[in-house]
Amino acid sequence: MHECHHEISHWLNDVGVQANVDAAGNLRGFYAGAEENSPRLLIGSHLDTVPNAGAYDGVLGVVIAVALLEALQGRRLPFGIEVVGFSEEEGVRFGTPFLGSRALVGQLDEQLLNLRDAEGVSIRQAIRDFGLDPAKIPSAALKGDALAYLEFHIEQGPVLESLGVPQALGVVEAIAAQMRMEFEFVGSTNHAGTTPMNLRHDAIAGAAEWIVEVERAAKNVPGAVATVGQIVAKPGAINVIAGSARVTLDVRHASDDTCAKVTRTSVQVAEEIAQRRGLKLRQRELLTQKGVRMDAFLAEEVERAIRHVGSNPHRMVSGAGHDAMILAEKVPAAMVFLPSPGGISHDPSESVRTEDVAKALECGLQLLEQLSNSSEFQKRVCRA
Amino acid sequence: MHECHHEISHWLNDVGVQANVDAAGNLRGFYAGAEENSPRLLIGSHLDTVPNAGAYDGVLGVVIAVALLEALQGRRLPFGIEVVGFSEEEGVRFGTPFLGSRALVGQLDEQLLNLRDAEGVSIRQAIRDFGLDPAKIPSAALKGDALAYLEFHIEQGPVLESLGVPQALGVVEAIAAQMRMEFEFVGSTNHAGTTPMNLRHDAIAGAAEWIVEVERAAKNVPGAVATVGQIVAKPGAINVIAGSARVTLDVRHASDDTCAKVTRTSVQVAEEIAQRRGLKLRQRELLTQKGVRMDAFLAEEVERAIRHVGSNPHRMVSGAGHDAMILAEKVPAAMVFLPSPGGISHDPSESVRTEDVAKALECGLQLLEQLSNSSEFQKRVCRA
Repeated sequence: MHECHHEISHWLNDVGVQANVDAAGNLRGFYAGAEENSPRLLIGSHLDTVPNAGAYDGVLGVVIAVALLEALQGRRLPFGIEVVGFSEEEGVRFGTPFLGSRALVGQLDEQLLNLRDAEGVSIRQAIRDFGLDPAKIPSAALKGDALAYLEFHIEQGPVLESLGVPQALGVVEAIAAQMRMEFEFVGSTNHAGTTPMNLRHDAIAGAAEWIVEVERAAKNVPGAVATVGQIVAKPGAINVIAGSARVTLDVRHASDDTCAKVTRTSVQVAEEIAQRRGLKLRQRELLTQKGVRMDAFLAEEVERAIRHVGSNPHRMVSGAGHDAMILAEKVPAAMVFLPSPGGISHDPSESVRTEDVAKALECGLQLLEQLSNSSEFQKRVCRA
Repeated sequence: MHECHHEISHWLNDVGVQANVDAAGNLRGFYAGAEENSPRLLIGSHLDTVPNAGAYDGVLGVVIAVALLEALQGRRLPFGIEVVGFSEEEGVRFGTPFLGSRALVGQLDEQLLNLRDAEGVSIRQAIRDFGLDPAKIPSAALKGDALAYLEFHIEQGPVLESLGVPQALGVVEAIAAQMRMEFEFVGSTNHAGTTPMNLRHDAIAGAAEWIVEVERAAKNVPGAVATVGQIVAKPGAINVIAGSARVTLDVRHASDDTCAKVTRTSVQVAEEIAQRRGLKLRQRELLTQKGVRMDAFLAEEVERAIRHVGSNPHRMVSGAGHDAMILAEKVPAAMVFLPSPGGISHDPSESVRTEDVAKALECGLQLLEQLSNSSEFQKRVCRA
């Protein structure tokens, strides 16, 4: 990460921006506005990634931010632009994501700092080991002059590509609400040869029927996704009817209510199936995460900018979490998605097309133009 | 097993029968017929069982055989009765079942004798360690005077109990044919949040749909059972669409053709589901075991005997394998099933009701009476 900061700092220096690393390990560089007291628009994404990852998740958004400054060629806008490269978005090491962006909204608190990695090293200690002072984290928080947050990111999914539209770019309307649960269907372990079909309490068969119904329920609700990603059946022998099947459920939707509704339907179907089949059902809620709406005004401006540069905007909900959902707690936030060829991410074959990056840059410049001339945005400046 | 042989030998001695252990470890005792050259009816079951077993699987059939001799009170029939307590029916130690009964039909051959247990001890060596001479195994085979084989056994399933009929006893018409297969549905591992429902290739969802269809297919064919006892999905994370789901299939039916047909239907449904969902399908056959019919004449005689003693005969197919399916290769074979309370077997809570054992004994005596007076059976004597 030191090397990464070093490299990007050089690029920022090349456009006349002094970069520094805040106490949460975020790389930050401020490109001043036309006036001394101009408020700031933040543009950024994360610099970390997952093991065995691709080359574009996160860092592409930071590179685009730097490239936008370069494209301005020294021209000053009614607002400054702060480039941010967040330090820890994925949550791989400490299990909790968005550590860098949480620092900007004042959420990287004592409790979080005490989290430890697999080797027992706390976040606080890791920050010290990196050469930073955790006591200074409060100074990383946004000041009153933060106007908005803009993030370019690869989609990490197949939606934009599947549209079959040339030069599609995604306008993120919301980052999805998410619920996670775990179920166990409990039946009777029995002899596969001596137990007639009508006298079985087959946990695998019950779970299978439920999985099919969960899929159907999600398909019936536009924009919803529901995933059973894990199934563990016991005893798990070819000639024994399973007595237990544990399954997980992951439901997402832009709306908290709809996410809860699909989850509730899944629970009801599980209960109905269990009762009809003479199975016991255990259930446990693992996560309820509310959805986060991106700023409607900014989304419209982004859409207009995409159209203006001859690309095709597609409004969509992000099923994955992003730093923008953290920043949105304090400032209006917007995201632009670039198509992910093959829908592939978190894999060495992750990629992005050069022409899509070029269009995203054009779109970003056009957006800066629009915002510079927007009276609505001026009002927001006053509010900020 | 030495102690078990010792105990049962005593009981046989008490009814005037000299017991011995053949070279395959089967306990055998011959109760002579009315004449010196009378042929023999074999009555028996197995003396071994599984770890953590109940007290009745197998051994009850041997105890009933001894009790039948006791009930004859020295009376001689037109045929002798050989009690057999088979040595190794379950196949726990060497992975292959029916070792004892195979010796009687000349199938405990060199290849089988070379099989080794988990500690590398061969069957041949185990027989030596037990104090027997494997070279003498051929002398354990049935001679020309073997007339028929009769086996009393607990059902090990819930069918008889579920009839709701008092004093039901099962007349086994056949031991089921069996096919075993393994399938793998291969889809695309993907992000549970960013992949819309209509763009998924979800291996778990495909396998689940198939499991439901397999269950439906078996329910549509009277007497068929089909079991998916194992499912292993990868990568198996709550927020990742599964790219692979391996499932097993165990199909049984009295008829080889029907068993094959249900299996074929399951394969076709798997192929159809895989194609529709854009999944790859791998399949592998693991076992094709033909069904074995019990002797029709003997089954009718058993049914008549059950009725005669005031019990309710229920014709059924055994989904589990038994020594009778091995003996049936050489002699007409019959089985009588006693109800298993709760359908439970291979578990310490395995049980049998005293009144059912009493009725089985009555039935056995009545059957001996019938066979003694049967001209049809006399013809068989001539044929033997």
